[in-house]
Amino acid sequence: MRIYIDTPFEERHKTALRKGIPDDELIFKEELPGAEAQLQALLTADILLGNPKPVEWLEQAINLKWVQLYSTGFEYYSHIKIPAVITNMQDYYSQPCAETIVAGILALYRGIDLCTRLKDQGRWIGYTIRSEFGTLFQKKVIILGWGNIGRRVATILKGFNCDIIIYSRSSGEAHIHDIEELKPQLPEADIVISCLPGSAQTRGMFTEEMIHLMKPTAIFCNVGRGNLLRNEQALINALHQKKLGGAVLDVTAQEPIPDGHPLWSTPNTILTQHSGGGSSTEYDGIAGFFMQNLDAFKKGNPLKNQIQFDRGY
Amino acid sequence: MRIYIDTPFEERHKTALRKGIPDDELIFKEELPGAEAQLQALLTADILLGNPKPVEWLEQAINLKWVQLYSTGFEYYSHIKIPAVITNMQDYYSQPCAETIVAGILALYRGIDLCTRLKDQGRWIGYTIRSEFGTLFQKKVIILGWGNIGRRVATILKGFNCDIIIYSRSSGEAHIHDIEELKPQLPEADIVISCLPGSAQTRGMFTEEMIHLMKPTAIFCNVGRGNLLRNEQALINALHQKKLGGAVLDVTAQEPIPDGHPLWSTPNTILTQHSGGGSSTEYDGIAGFFMQNLDAFKKGNPLKNQIQFDRGY
Repeated sequence: MRIYIDTPFEERHKTALRKGIPDDELIFKEELPGAEAQLQALLTADILLGNPKPVEWLEQAINLKWVQLYSTGFEYYSHIKIPAVITNMQDYYSQPCAETIVAGILALYRGIDLCTRLKDQGRWIGYTIRSEFGTLFQKKVIILGWGNIGRRVATILKGFNCDIIIYSRSSGEAHIHDIEELKPQLPEADIVISCLPGSAQTRGMFTEEMIHLMKPTAIFCNVGRGNLLRNEQALINALHQKKLGGAVLDVTAQEPIPDGHPLWSTPNTILTQHSGGGSSTEYDGIAGFFMQNLDAFKKGNPLKNQIQFDRGY
Repeated sequence: MRIYIDTPFEERHKTALRKGIPDDELIFKEELPGAEAQLQALLTADILLGNPKPVEWLEQAINLKWVQLYSTGFEYYSHIKIPAVITNMQDYYSQPCAETIVAGILALYRGIDLCTRLKDQGRWIGYTIRSEFGTLFQKKVIILGWGNIGRRVATILKGFNCDIIIYSRSSGEAHIHDIEELKPQLPEADIVISCLPGSAQTRGMFTEEMIHLMKPTAIFCNVGRGNLLRNEQALINALHQKKLGGAVLDVTAQEPIPDGHPLWSTPNTILTQHSGGGSSTEYDGIAGFFMQNLDAFKKGNPLKNQIQFDRGY
């Protein structure tokens, strides 16, 4: 079989894949001479491992029997109808994403960003910085989205004895299910964490009004999609004016955040540059998962993590 | 009664104390003209709230009936024998200390220090920084000291599904009880966290040999006392030479860390400047606790958090 691979693997991952899949043809995108050869390889492949761009390329790939995405999110493919079975990475990035958000929250409460700057300056402040700090212990936290990341975040927050309120349109485990139920909760929350995926419903869902409903000490966190905020500038203004206590943003309206963008100079804000899902073993895990699923594919067994582009999950 | 107060309160705390204790004489150290007046006030007081320096002043304070320390640690007073009942703040700082250590660990795993520097530079790296990150999930953690801080740390780490090994000389809950049992565990640990108090046994307990027994990816953390490390320079060298993965140090051999000290430029190190116990409500809590204990003292009821200097707890 011809397997087209459009995933940013390093040499060690390629070596592992070639060793683990000796009987099939592996075609790595970056080893092809240019865009035309890449498109041709995609259109003639049986299997795709990766997330090709431009998106339109995948629309034409009607010969593919199976697409293994290396991502969990796939909203940019939602209009595509091809006969292939589609699988994604589902829960794979949830734990690192959850840890990044909690790392950012704890950094704000315990002054890790401030201490990093002081270390670089070789400057001791010591006792007086203590009065700026807080604790995550027993804080009231609203988690937006009760998927894998939200559940991992909740598990971690239990260790801090937090009071957790779940917002989900569809989950029976959620405490609140629509925006009108959410709004009255916002003034009570110490922390709001969005783990919502990208969809027509979540785009622009968190309005300027909702930012202003939050407490001046509250922290807004987003590890879902940057377009959740209808007006990112309103968040930036609230942080400058101390109408909001802090923000932890793994995702932002623009990625990469451009040079000179106001977010770079927004106070009490941790910007993790969409690194939430990352880890040193990230691509080892993707390669390993693909090889397991390939084995199932060849045996005609059901594939793990099947999704439908148009259904959204 | 005369109450001498040697605690860095702000005006709002003094106002609260004066309002809450209207019938007694409150003497605040910093309102007295100089050292001689301060010593005189201490020696003639019935009650002390605070930790006077020099230590010798307290040796002479034989008229005191009750000493409420604002700290948890008190090893620098351990030789003092005065008739007063002594109380400390026991568990009061445990949760913020535990959160500071976990904040530092998560910062190293999730690159919060790196992201803070990138934000200050207005520089996006994005995808490629992911490969430097790790997760706290299921890590093997040795906790040195099974007092209040160690327990709080363990509660938090359960939310990360960590494998926890407790070292304590005295606790029946501990897995290991002496250095010879600890050493073979060190090469297996991803993280070592010292929450040990200052004492003759813990001074210099963690040797250069023990640093070298740790994995090159492991993280050493200290929220106990800086003199736990027999040779702090050996830790610094191991971090420079990548024989150790990282360090989170709330306490250090020298505090304040002097200008130009090698710790300021040690890589993969979070220095929290002995701020671990701090919070914006720290002195409100001390004032409140003192007033509760004062009420018990006046009624002849037992005081909370009684300790003995020479016993060490």
